[in-house]
Amino acid sequence: MDDAPPLTEGVLFTDQYQLTMAQLYFRHGLAGRDAQFDYFHRTNPDYGTHQAGYCITAGLGGLLDWMSEARFGPAELDALAAQRGASGARRFDDGFLAWLSEHGHFRDLRVAAVPEGRVVHPHLPVLTVQGPLAMAQILETSLLNHMNYPTLVATKASRIADSARGSAVLEFGMRRGPGWGVNSAARAALIGGCNFTSNVGMSHELGLDPKGTHAHSLVQVFIALRGGELEAFRAYAEAYPDECVLLVDTIDTLGSGVPNALTVFAELRAAGHEPRGIRLDSGDLAFLSIQAARALDAAGFPDVSIVLSNDLDELAIWQILSQIDQEAPRYGVDAAALRARLTYGVGTNLITSAGHAALDGVYKLVAVRSADGSGTPWTPAIKLSENPVKIPIPGEKSIWRLYDARGMATVDVVAGVDEDPLAADPLVLHHPYRPGVRRVLRRDDIAEAERLAALVYSPGSGRATDPLAVMRDRRRADLDRLDPGVRRLVNPHVYHVSLTTEVKANQQRLIDEVTGIDRPPAAGGAHRDRPQG
Amino acid sequence: MDDAPPLTEGVLFTDQYQLTMAQLYFRHGLAGRDAQFDYFHRTNPDYGTHQAGYCITAGLGGLLDWMSEARFGPAELDALAAQRGASGARRFDDGFLAWLSEHGHFRDLRVAAVPEGRVVHPHLPVLTVQGPLAMAQILETSLLNHMNYPTLVATKASRIADSARGSAVLEFGMRRGPGWGVNSAARAALIGGCNFTSNVGMSHELGLDPKGTHAHSLVQVFIALRGGELEAFRAYAEAYPDECVLLVDTIDTLGSGVPNALTVFAELRAAGHEPRGIRLDSGDLAFLSIQAARALDAAGFPDVSIVLSNDLDELAIWQILSQIDQEAPRYGVDAAALRARLTYGVGTNLITSAGHAALDGVYKLVAVRSADGSGTPWTPAIKLSENPVKIPIPGEKSIWRLYDARGMATVDVVAGVDEDPLAADPLVLHHPYRPGVRRVLRRDDIAEAERLAALVYSPGSGRATDPLAVMRDRRRADLDRLDPGVRRLVNPHVYHVSLTTEVKANQQRLIDEVTGIDRPPAAGGAHRDRPQG
Repeated sequence: MDDAPPLTEGVLFTDQYQLTMAQLYFRHGLAGRDAQFDYFHRTNPDYGTHQAGYCITAGLGGLLDWMSEARFGPAELDALAAQRGASGARRFDDGFLAWLSEHGHFRDLRVAAVPEGRVVHPHLPVLTVQGPLAMAQILETSLLNHMNYPTLVATKASRIADSARGSAVLEFGMRRGPGWGVNSAARAALIGGCNFTSNVGMSHELGLDPKGTHAHSLVQVFIALRGGELEAFRAYAEAYPDECVLLVDTIDTLGSGVPNALTVFAELRAAGHEPRGIRLDSGDLAFLSIQAARALDAAGFPDVSIVLSNDLDELAIWQILSQIDQEAPRYGVDAAALRARLTYGVGTNLITSAGHAALDGVYKLVAVRSADGSGTPWTPAIKLSENPVKIPIPGEKSIWRLYDARGMATVDVVAGVDEDPLAADPLVLHHPYRPGVRRVLRRDDIAEAERLAALVYSPGSGRATDPLAVMRDRRRADLDRLDPGVRRLVNPHVYHVSLTTEVKANQQRLIDEVTGIDRPPAAGGAHRDRPQG
Repeated sequence: MDDAPPLTEGVLFTDQYQLTMAQLYFRHGLAGRDAQFDYFHRTNPDYGTHQAGYCITAGLGGLLDWMSEARFGPAELDALAAQRGASGARRFDDGFLAWLSEHGHFRDLRVAAVPEGRVVHPHLPVLTVQGPLAMAQILETSLLNHMNYPTLVATKASRIADSARGSAVLEFGMRRGPGWGVNSAARAALIGGCNFTSNVGMSHELGLDPKGTHAHSLVQVFIALRGGELEAFRAYAEAYPDECVLLVDTIDTLGSGVPNALTVFAELRAAGHEPRGIRLDSGDLAFLSIQAARALDAAGFPDVSIVLSNDLDELAIWQILSQIDQEAPRYGVDAAALRARLTYGVGTNLITSAGHAALDGVYKLVAVRSADGSGTPWTPAIKLSENPVKIPIPGEKSIWRLYDARGMATVDVVAGVDEDPLAADPLVLHHPYRPGVRRVLRRDDIAEAERLAALVYSPGSGRATDPLAVMRDRRRADLDRLDPGVRRLVNPHVYHVSLTTEVKANQQRLIDEVTGIDRPPAAGGAHRDRPQG
């Protein structure tokens, strides 16, 4: 009990309605009934001027850590016992609290998921939870919280890393990021393609070297007390002679910062050390990096890196590289050599996923067993909506990625739980929500069908922990097999996620059933809902 | 030591460069030298189609809690001792670690701040830290993290609450919010004007009743196993007869949900309970709320609330209310009565501050003592920039809000630390960064000058904890004294933050000094920086 988390971080890290529903399920004998919920997102991030053609799934590790620890302990039960309803009576009764005391943990759930670091697409059930209805319901909020934001950040990181064309990208976003969310964001950024982070605690947790040099304040202190910028640079070089990176824009980048850095770099080399880099944090970064490269080359430091920062994102980096290609030759600087020496520090735009600040991931009930006991059949469940994009895919399913003869991913398929998606020839693939929209694939055009989800958490067994390097390798491998048109930064092609005929028919049957029941006669034209865009 | 936080939440919740700078200060005998840093933001949030004319400051409570606990304990010192530089040698030496072991906490710092919940404006130093340079420097990242995001969310909440014109606003954002950041966001939303949150843990921590009813999944479960929507509503009403709010859009809002709710509400009333509300979560919320109100009125439930949710923000609420004003009379519904029964659940757009996902708050060195000892004079410090908006206000200062004869706030003034801003007549007020831009106020036009900052954390003394209700009252009182033109949702007037002649002259003197030093002769036209927009 001593290491119980605060109320705000344990099992009460959830929405109130999960608890009121759970008590209702308990009273109706349904708390322990097996249910299945699917987690999926409906659209890729659209940043306004540019759009993601894919996502990188992330957050599973944090979720499973939390699920392994969170439970209704004495503090949580006391809190619920203290809640009073509108009448003044207790909102949660002793019977329900006793049930929670015994069953109020997540260790009876089974989670299957696409592993972290993989490319995923809208409507694909990235994660599936099966287990007792009450606890699977209570899990919803934390699961969405643990998955949505990291996936958003990993996706942005992947795009930024792509844009940087192999140069190192450093995550610098703590200061303007969303509170404690920056820790899971740093991890997600590293999964998504960042090489390092400035976040010291997370670097140590993940076994990486934290990155960073100095801020403007160092130069300010030396200006105020010890001479000026040159003295600040000398002090830094003396303290860190083998990893000396100097921030050159505190006073005047080309008029003061770069010349002072060159003086100190020459002194360093004379003392037997090689300088590592300069950092530019303001102004026209393309122009300044060309001029800085010219000065560094002329002074005999062609290998010193140039670290760029200041409101960078994938488009800003793309623009900088385009401008360098155009402008560098005019100053006698080799554009390719300059590109190769650049490093990017990316902060606010990465950690907030600027332009698209929330993934629309949802967690939907898709099946519930018809009676208690794991041998009883599943009853598929559905939710209707005026907006067909919001209708989930009911029932138990399996998910597959099909690769063509080039080895490139061509479609993700949602099949029945025991269905072999390659059994039919040709394969008829249905749009997940647009009626009648189909695609037909010849069996011969498919070189490989890969199962995407694996069991990652189950009763009695622990859970596998993936090293960061494995997750990063997954992303690189998946991007290599993703069509460049889907991968591109602006107006990407739409990658297909499709349903087999079996799954599509099951979905339509349920829609027909539900729309035929539970509907009193409509009271007239004005009582119809107005359709939504 | 047992209750030491994980590495990711303690004093290593910072950027690496703070630590490399701190060691350098230590080696130069400056680690314990008194320094002053100011926290301020430079621009109000601009959401694209609408803009904030003010901010609500929030986050101080969380920051001071963290500062009270964070320190370099054995785990942190071990982590730093394990860091290796590029040469393979230890990056942080024993001398520095010994210093951190003794002085590596924040209890020697003094923090003065504008209290949480108050209206604040760009360039106003909302928070000032004085104390040993090394620890004041290490504090930077966590301080910015703790202040920027909550201020952003409190500001958005304030606008949404304003737009709701007195109706209750509930914070529902956990599921799509940024990881653990949602806890500080819930607190900030409550400071900024939300009435309640669905976040169970934070509600208990803050002594509020968590809000929420049921989700679509409850109806789905009952459709699959126990009949349908009507049976789900009956079950909910039976479990929570005195706080029954029913979600009516799982199947068909007006064709099924509302009629079924009316049936259950009549049964509830017959059993001696009054129903509380319905919730609409999709479709044309204005149209649906008019039709739902009509049906509720006709059935004898004119007092039942209508809770609206689904991607709401201040503009969406404004639009809904405008549409209700236009459209309700056509259906014989009184628009004012309908407005009065509405409640808003606001999630993603609030918790991500959609459209403007990061406050640009910074923490800048503005002064450092010329020698050790608290009696020695302060030397003001400055950082130049091509962009004059980025030049901070150097030195020790005091901050004031001046109110006119109507009792309305008219300008915030940054004065010298011992300066009375009302001593001169007329008062000459200078733009914080535009040279030559001045405003002149007659002393007679000022009814009141209020000091804005108070000491909130200091060595030896604890720190004051404000109850949530006090912070919420502050916001309401400040908004009442804010010009409606500054407060409006779109294209607000710019509120003035000005410097006294003393402060302005001090800033200009430092700029002149710094631009005259540390600058080697320029090497030609191409070596000039290119100015930035």
